[in-house]
Amino acid sequence: MREIGVAALRDIARGAAVLGTGGGGDPYIGRLLAERAIAAHGPVTLVDVDEVPAGALVVPTAMIGAPTAMLEKLPAGDEGAAALEALQAVLDGEVTHTVSIEAGGLNSVVPLVTAATHGLPVVDADGMGRAFPEVQMVLCTLAGIQAAPLALADDKGNRLVMRTIDNVWAERFARTATVEMGCSAMMALYAMRGDQLAEATVAGTLTLCEELGALIAAERRAHGDPVGAIAERLGGRRLVGAKVSDVERRTEGGFARGEARLEGIGDDRGAALRLHFQNEHLLAELDGHAAASTPDLIIVLDAETGEPITTEALRYGQRVVVIAAPCDPRWRSPAGLALAGPRVFGYDIDYQPVEAPACVS
Amino acid sequence: MREIGVAALRDIARGAAVLGTGGGGDPYIGRLLAERAIAAHGPVTLVDVDEVPAGALVVPTAMIGAPTAMLEKLPAGDEGAAALEALQAVLDGEVTHTVSIEAGGLNSVVPLVTAATHGLPVVDADGMGRAFPEVQMVLCTLAGIQAAPLALADDKGNRLVMRTIDNVWAERFARTATVEMGCSAMMALYAMRGDQLAEATVAGTLTLCEELGALIAAERRAHGDPVGAIAERLGGRRLVGAKVSDVERRTEGGFARGEARLEGIGDDRGAALRLHFQNEHLLAELDGHAAASTPDLIIVLDAETGEPITTEALRYGQRVVVIAAPCDPRWRSPAGLALAGPRVFGYDIDYQPVEAPACVS
Repeated sequence: MREIGVAALRDIARGAAVLGTGGGGDPYIGRLLAERAIAAHGPVTLVDVDEVPAGALVVPTAMIGAPTAMLEKLPAGDEGAAALEALQAVLDGEVTHTVSIEAGGLNSVVPLVTAATHGLPVVDADGMGRAFPEVQMVLCTLAGIQAAPLALADDKGNRLVMRTIDNVWAERFARTATVEMGCSAMMALYAMRGDQLAEATVAGTLTLCEELGALIAAERRAHGDPVGAIAERLGGRRLVGAKVSDVERRTEGGFARGEARLEGIGDDRGAALRLHFQNEHLLAELDGHAAASTPDLIIVLDAETGEPITTEALRYGQRVVVIAAPCDPRWRSPAGLALAGPRVFGYDIDYQPVEAPACVS
Repeated sequence: MREIGVAALRDIARGAAVLGTGGGGDPYIGRLLAERAIAAHGPVTLVDVDEVPAGALVVPTAMIGAPTAMLEKLPAGDEGAAALEALQAVLDGEVTHTVSIEAGGLNSVVPLVTAATHGLPVVDADGMGRAFPEVQMVLCTLAGIQAAPLALADDKGNRLVMRTIDNVWAERFARTATVEMGCSAMMALYAMRGDQLAEATVAGTLTLCEELGALIAAERRAHGDPVGAIAERLGGRRLVGAKVSDVERRTEGGFARGEARLEGIGDDRGAALRLHFQNEHLLAELDGHAAASTPDLIIVLDAETGEPITTEALRYGQRVVVIAAPCDPRWRSPAGLALAGPRVFGYDIDYQPVEAPACVS
């Protein structure tokens, strides 16, 4: 158990954007929201998964929508709290903790905002160990936990509570409502007991985010190698150093979808990389072959500063390094791949763990 | 106060389809659903508006969606009850009555199904005195009653409860959720007190439906004039006798939208009628001029049998008589026209009461 104050937020948001693999929201917006909430309500208590009582009632709170939309329509700040209140009204028992549904520049800190506002502790964990674009794509689903009842809140004051028959229907209803809400909203869902956390979440994610964020800052101060340090810490590997030559982006169906083309630079001159994304990077094709794919992490970092770059911030001319890192092993199970493997997103490839690439030249 | 048994359903559903002005659902489906519910649970008690205690909690139940979709995907029958239960769970106090939100072949009898299942009395009234396509288009809105909390249920078991900031937002969220539900769903909404009924509903609608349905049957038996009898009873007038020559129909945005072209027959030979509809008939253009428009009732009846024809049942070659009848006077107020007048639906005309047509040749 420890306290999270304003000072830790910059590192947490930055490190979370690394694990967000391009999605999970903008870390700058995330930091601003959390700074305001913690300044107003005081620091937040962070507890480890094994410190949570078995009978605790843990409710993740998160942003849903297209990160591109959230850049234009900033959250008012209290939608997460409103979503939690709407859910609390239909739950048996008092919510005791909140937690991140995913790692991401925004979605790792949304629970800190909720926690500060409600005086709740935050569990040091998240539901994926990365970010994924759809509601059902969480370890909670693999653990048999229902997304519903699910509450959705927008900046205007609308509150929806959904009791869906499964987690895919939760995604469908939440997504279409989010589109009406202006393509971004806050939600509370996947209410679970404390003794379900170990199976349904990745433990220690917030601490890992803070460590990753601090690592980038430290390497940068020391004129070291932030990109290499991140790859090493995550057990991943460098795919390519490249310059962004084209980004095709569309906000459709409540997602930010698109594709980026990158040209190798330096030692990688001549290489051609294509990144396919739906909020998150889902497939990296190097010279026409799949070099890494979901559920493994595809991470785009600024070549010089090591700063993570979200899909909505990708711009022509940026010099980046793309690294790939292994996902939580539960995603590599048949059930995990059926929930978030490459074929789920329409890519006609078999998943290859990033440690054993078949087709890299 | 009186009882509604199976015998009355045919007349009620048929008469309701007359007032439905092309929308409000198919009377045959409506009758089947109500017959099954009343056969299983016994007759339903119908009470007059002035028999409802001031403190009663009255909740309308209704179908929402595109009638075209409901022809292919019949309701399972208990969605209305499920919607009411979902709403009851978030209401203070016990629901004591249900009522029709609109007049229509299906939506006049949905409350009878709910009432039979739940053992509730039905109020002899409806929220419009006709049918309209959108959630906010009810006298309840003019009376300042909120649609929310609104509950939506589908045939699969999904249940949504919406707390929207106004009735237009209720329409937006309910409509997009309905599209996900397969373009038809059941809802419970506009919870109101007994003493709000007089302002928020049209009294006596179910009895009027039964009377209209019986009138058509009696005229037919007597080889009389069912069409003329309906027009006279509603204080309306015959626009034209015509043959349907073209129907353009699309199910879009959760509505059945389209346009029908009709050619005058008999004494009306040479006349050209265009009917514009969004679930309901909203504008009748005779020889290029508006002859009748929303909020007045545009009613299409089979020329021979007087049977009402819904927009989704309009077919090439049908011989029909189109009549127009005055709406409830509250719809003719500035607030009523701002809620459901022709300009709301994009028709660039000023509303003319059907009794004083400006442009009929």
